[in-house]
Amino acid sequence: MSITDEEAERHREKMRKRKAVQDAEVASKPIVQKGLLIVNTGPGKGKSTAAFGLALRMLGTGGRVGVVQFVKGAWHAGEQDGFAAFGERVQWHSMGEGFTWETQDRARDLAAAARAWEQAKRMLEDPSLDLVVLDELNIALRYEMLDLAEVVATLAGRREGLHVVVTGRNAKPELIEAADCVTEMGATKHHFSAGVRAQKGVEF
Amino acid sequence: MSITDEEAERHREKMRKRKAVQDAEVASKPIVQKGLLIVNTGPGKGKSTAAFGLALRMLGTGGRVGVVQFVKGAWHAGEQDGFAAFGERVQWHSMGEGFTWETQDRARDLAAAARAWEQAKRMLEDPSLDLVVLDELNIALRYEMLDLAEVVATLAGRREGLHVVVTGRNAKPELIEAADCVTEMGATKHHFSAGVRAQKGVEF
Repeated sequence: MSITDEEAERHREKMRKRKAVQDAEVASKPIVQKGLLIVNTGPGKGKSTAAFGLALRMLGTGGRVGVVQFVKGAWHAGEQDGFAAFGERVQWHSMGEGFTWETQDRARDLAAAARAWEQAKRMLEDPSLDLVVLDELNIALRYEMLDLAEVVATLAGRREGLHVVVTGRNAKPELIEAADCVTEMGATKHHFSAGVRAQKGVEF
Repeated sequence: MSITDEEAERHREKMRKRKAVQDAEVASKPIVQKGLLIVNTGPGKGKSTAAFGLALRMLGTGGRVGVVQFVKGAWHAGEQDGFAAFGERVQWHSMGEGFTWETQDRARDLAAAARAWEQAKRMLEDPSLDLVVLDELNIALRYEMLDLAEVVATLAGRREGLHVVVTGRNAKPELIEAADCVTEMGATKHHFSAGVRAQKGVEF
């Protein structure tokens, strides 16, 4: 594709204005550094996957990451093997017992959630970590496996500079209220609906 | 939190039914293996991040990944350093010149997009790759830097078994139509709006 000189100049002028707006917007933000509470929720794909992508970025900038999985645990996840490449810069704890319809045991689910939350709190207090991923914590909160008020207060009171990502469908309004950044993943189209099973390297 | 025996039994029965539904659903899907065309779009965060998280999962299962960045390139991304841990199992090409309002040069943007697309096509034909990430390709399509029909036809005609993820806002309807899985990332809440600047290890 090619363009005329006139088109090129018009484009340049438009982009010059856009850059001025952009620069002014950045300059107008007073808070330069802040540990963020990020929530990835909604019925679509990518909630945990984006959290792990963020962990990868944090590792790429030299940071250290902690992960607690509240639901997964019964099976082995590809991302866990991926993070092994970063050695001790990633602390990974799969504390779940699998989906509730797999365990079929409420008491066991409650005990697993409590153990996972204890592990999460230890990580939140660990000054060596830059990012803590609480994968599927929303599921544990939705099924009332943990005390919502305590969880929200603990996350809101996290130490300065610590980034936390919480994933899972049906995030509680109280958690959304406390969060700095909330993304709702919407399922516009899903291959499961077209009769395709979960794919290795994509879903697990 | 504790529960009574009666509650426990009720829960068990409910979950037993749920598992039966779940198992029947999986069994009903006739397509066991398929290379997926995945599109992450929408105004929210996590589009590229989820794509890189997927790449990490693919690497964790022993796969090989190719990445072409259509817009980014002018600056260095944390995730790129993160992927360095996987050596030659990741092929990474940042082919962009930065945002269009940074370059302010339409001809340069077009040339960069064309080069990036050539690189993408080489990766799509490389039988050693399991997943190809075309980061911000939607942006190049939106600004008509590439021929939409050719891009969609090439992606739809990709070799069997190859997974492709396309990211960026404003995915074209033709691409959505061709995709197996589309997630719309919605921005429910964003810290930029609260005066917080982009954070190292989170945004870059």
